[in-house]
Amino acid sequence: MSTMTSTDSPEASGEELGEFELIARMAARLKGGLPEGVVGIGDDCAALPLSDGGVQLLTCDVMVDGRHFISGRSGMADVGWRAATASVSDICACGGLPGYALVSLMVPPGQRADSLEALYEGLAEAEAEYGFRVIGGNVSGGTVLAVDVFMLGEAPRFVSRGGARPGDRIAVSGTLGDAAAGLTLLDAGASTASGADELIRRHLRPRAEVALVPLIQRAASSAIDISDGLSAELHHLAQASGARMDIHGGLIPLSESLTAFAQARGDSPLMWALHGGEDYRLLFTVPPEHLDALGDSQASVIGEVREGEGVFLDGAPLPRGGWDHLAPEKSDRKS
Amino acid sequence: MSTMTSTDSPEASGEELGEFELIARMAARLKGGLPEGVVGIGDDCAALPLSDGGVQLLTCDVMVDGRHFISGRSGMADVGWRAATASVSDICACGGLPGYALVSLMVPPGQRADSLEALYEGLAEAEAEYGFRVIGGNVSGGTVLAVDVFMLGEAPRFVSRGGARPGDRIAVSGTLGDAAAGLTLLDAGASTASGADELIRRHLRPRAEVALVPLIQRAASSAIDISDGLSAELHHLAQASGARMDIHGGLIPLSESLTAFAQARGDSPLMWALHGGEDYRLLFTVPPEHLDALGDSQASVIGEVREGEGVFLDGAPLPRGGWDHLAPEKSDRKS
Repeated sequence: MSTMTSTDSPEASGEELGEFELIARMAARLKGGLPEGVVGIGDDCAALPLSDGGVQLLTCDVMVDGRHFISGRSGMADVGWRAATASVSDICACGGLPGYALVSLMVPPGQRADSLEALYEGLAEAEAEYGFRVIGGNVSGGTVLAVDVFMLGEAPRFVSRGGARPGDRIAVSGTLGDAAAGLTLLDAGASTASGADELIRRHLRPRAEVALVPLIQRAASSAIDISDGLSAELHHLAQASGARMDIHGGLIPLSESLTAFAQARGDSPLMWALHGGEDYRLLFTVPPEHLDALGDSQASVIGEVREGEGVFLDGAPLPRGGWDHLAPEKSDRKS
Repeated sequence: MSTMTSTDSPEASGEELGEFELIARMAARLKGGLPEGVVGIGDDCAALPLSDGGVQLLTCDVMVDGRHFISGRSGMADVGWRAATASVSDICACGGLPGYALVSLMVPPGQRADSLEALYEGLAEAEAEYGFRVIGGNVSGGTVLAVDVFMLGEAPRFVSRGGARPGDRIAVSGTLGDAAAGLTLLDAGASTASGADELIRRHLRPRAEVALVPLIQRAASSAIDISDGLSAELHHLAQASGARMDIHGGLIPLSESLTAFAQARGDSPLMWALHGGEDYRLLFTVPPEHLDALGDSQASVIGEVREGEGVFLDGAPLPRGGWDHLAPEKSDRKS
């Protein structure tokens, strides 16, 4: 848990404390050796060894009204889809495919039944798309609507954040920054700008990279999913792997829609790609001898792993950036 | 899911709809055959087959501020303990012991760090007591504090709600109604009544029946945990098993503290035992040939299973009663 920041004040609020410190404190409270082959707090998923030599992967992600979506603005089917996608993406990042899920639903007084049916419909669409099955869960009273998805998956081997080695290439699985731009467009209300619909769709209906999992299994030395922005995830990889990540701005894949969106605002599209969250693309590293595995995939090489520490963009240190994970409408942190 | 009530109005609120209808709708949306050996929605846990012939058990339970506890009134260590206990109790009810957990934490702005440390401390105490390990989870921004515990366990065989057969005896694992009385005392503020501390402790620090699991495995034809009150759980067993449950009021175990509490109010202690929730005792059925297994346990025989349907107390129909699961400070429903 070397990524954690620290605070000396026990009176610090959760907001001030930050998610990393919260996780560090949780890990400290719940510390102690785990049985051999068990992966605990600190990666995209936890893992338990399977008798066939593979691993069972476990993760959870929650969508809370007022934080991750706004009732009445997001369609509830989209909320169900996104909740499932966030968990499936964690499974993919560890090299696995999802199998089964439990859904924990917190329902405030007066919640409309049709909105919950739409939420289930979104979950059912995700089931069909990603190939998992909801086999249980819990329905609870709550004070705001929240849907917490616990996902189980399996992988032949656990692909961690910590396996990147100097000389490996750094790759991403598609264009970046689109979902964050889509959220901004959604916040601003109706837009007729070119590509706006595509960007909004990328926010409301992100896709976990299940199709890339065989490549990750075969070729990746490390992987993480991009829920908090490329910059933040590169820092996680660098710290977990004890290596330096060097990326090249000109190699970062940008959609035409994002470029048009950013140019219309006078922004650099690269800033959106570096710091925008919830794309659910995969960021991974590939040893040189496995580079041919990238072949026909949508993945792009954006840099290389070096000896050292930190993250560099075109040779200059790149600050962590990324989402503030306890702020409204932003992504969260896996412990 | 034959236990479900129905509503024709898609505009019904969640409150009006009720948890059983919500679960029925979820099950309908997420329907379809599961692979052989997989247990889906409808019992205390879901289950996946293990290669050794046993089952992996999966469940989750959440504690939401303002619903299941009141910040500042419940100690946060108690909240962590109760959240873990509720999930462990589900595992025990299916004949299993807990192994690993993920903890999903929703943290509102301004949450005090020391309160979260206390919550983790309660989880760590539960880990040590019940023998499971927290191996991951998620920290998310939220609008109210909530802790969702996803628990994994294992059992040599899955003990369901549906295995009770006519002639089996009905047993419970300890005194009932204590936790509900404790909550009432807590609501009312400080009390010097005899036994008040014990009852409050039974609410704040309920104990899952891990010690009874070997007996459940060896002797039980069906089992369920008493989270929603004896009456409600008997109805669940009766419906899942397609049988009638006959219990005898004089056999229901009551603590001296509950009896004193109820008498001081002019209540019948039996009503607290029948309808009070969150005791986390086990209700189970035992075929006559296995009755000697009850031997030295704390379990009491309270009645017998018969041909037919419904639940009867001293020969008279016993209404379902129990908690209203979407009401504040009450228990919830497993799907």
